[in-house]
Amino acid sequence: MITLLAPAGIPEVSPGDDLAALIAHALAGEGIGLEEGDVLVVTQKVVSKAEGRVVELASVTPGDQAREWAERWGKDARQVELVLRESAEVVRMAPGGLIISRTRHGFVCANAGVDLSNAPSEGVAVLLPLDPDASAERLRGQLVARGAGPLGVVVSDTFGRPWREGLVDVALGCAGFAPITDWRGTPDLTGRELQVTATATADQLAAAAGLLMRKDAGIPAVWVEGVALEGTGRVRDTLRAPAMDLFR
Amino acid sequence: MITLLAPAGIPEVSPGDDLAALIAHALAGEGIGLEEGDVLVVTQKVVSKAEGRVVELASVTPGDQAREWAERWGKDARQVELVLRESAEVVRMAPGGLIISRTRHGFVCANAGVDLSNAPSEGVAVLLPLDPDASAERLRGQLVARGAGPLGVVVSDTFGRPWREGLVDVALGCAGFAPITDWRGTPDLTGRELQVTATATADQLAAAAGLLMRKDAGIPAVWVEGVALEGTGRVRDTLRAPAMDLFR
Repeated sequence: MITLLAPAGIPEVSPGDDLAALIAHALAGEGIGLEEGDVLVVTQKVVSKAEGRVVELASVTPGDQAREWAERWGKDARQVELVLRESAEVVRMAPGGLIISRTRHGFVCANAGVDLSNAPSEGVAVLLPLDPDASAERLRGQLVARGAGPLGVVVSDTFGRPWREGLVDVALGCAGFAPITDWRGTPDLTGRELQVTATATADQLAAAAGLLMRKDAGIPAVWVEGVALEGTGRVRDTLRAPAMDLFR
Repeated sequence: MITLLAPAGIPEVSPGDDLAALIAHALAGEGIGLEEGDVLVVTQKVVSKAEGRVVELASVTPGDQAREWAERWGKDARQVELVLRESAEVVRMAPGGLIISRTRHGFVCANAGVDLSNAPSEGVAVLLPLDPDASAERLRGQLVARGAGPLGVVVSDTFGRPWREGLVDVALGCAGFAPITDWRGTPDLTGRELQVTATATADQLAAAAGLLMRKDAGIPAVWVEGVALEGTGRVRDTLRAPAMDLFR
């Protein structure tokens, strides 16, 4: 059995806030102490805010490409400039002004993960963490230092994907377990080697937590109990190099 | 709070079996009656088996393309023939013999969803349901007829995806709720219109259930309690036409 709970009472997060303390306090308010094998799924947005990955749009000087694209689609040129800066490669600049790009981390997503909604205030953009696996590991260390058992941490974000409408929550980073559960060499019930060889456990955790993260409610963290965690690893190492991608 | 549970005691399913009865019986054994707002996530494999979507490989005569591909990669030509028959469009025939294709339903996945592992016996392949939304609706009707409240049903399968290693469970069909939760026009906490406009609730449910579907354990169904369901709709209508896909 798996249980998921979104603790109430996590306040708006600002640069420099002790996110581990805020989350541990909120969980304690629900009577939850983090124990071995529990998982905490935390949205990228609060992690980025706590880490100071916020940019005043007033401080951004857009370049020619950003100005041109913004004018063409009625966008804020400073926001477009941030998206281009965060991108290692633009996959597509789509009608309507949406930019699909590969971020410096290797994530393919809309607007390089630069977020204006739910940002702390008007005129501020929230960028993805510089190293989401390191963010997860740091948060995990801080929670363990506060008395948590050896838990798993996932830093999640909400991404679109090819071929299907609707966005899903995926793992940008993780700590305390392997993001991929490897079934290679495991026989199925009839003794045949399994056709499904590797499950993206970190992504499934992010998606499960996403069920509680109603977009109008500002839910920054979800506690998960009852998932079998194995191994260790980083999300970064599970991103496919473009040349290795079978799907295109 | 969300709770997920994989009921024990669902036997191997064969063509013609009453899947609703098998699942309801297993849930009753766990003390669970299906109530309003509950969701049942059922794997494609047992749905297909119950619906008779199984093919004896001995009955399949491979064509030239299937024979050629099978010989080149050491595959079973009859299996390759089934994959090609189930495909509307081959996206890629990849080194190693893996075929990525768009199925007749519009799903882009490996081997057109044709499954040999966990199949009822050697020499038998399990195909995707002809209409997974209809399968979900039928199963839902049968469960309601057995006394369940107005619940949601998801038919799931395990798919790879671009850019990231590892497979995730996604919804092939659903019934009793809208597969996409639409946030357009909803303000966020600061009154700004939401950037995330549509969440793939059916896929998040499939992924959450996937956390309990260990591939070596043959878990065919997971019960989910506590998810906010809205509206109605079909997964089929949320698949993007290739020309509309921003990600390629």
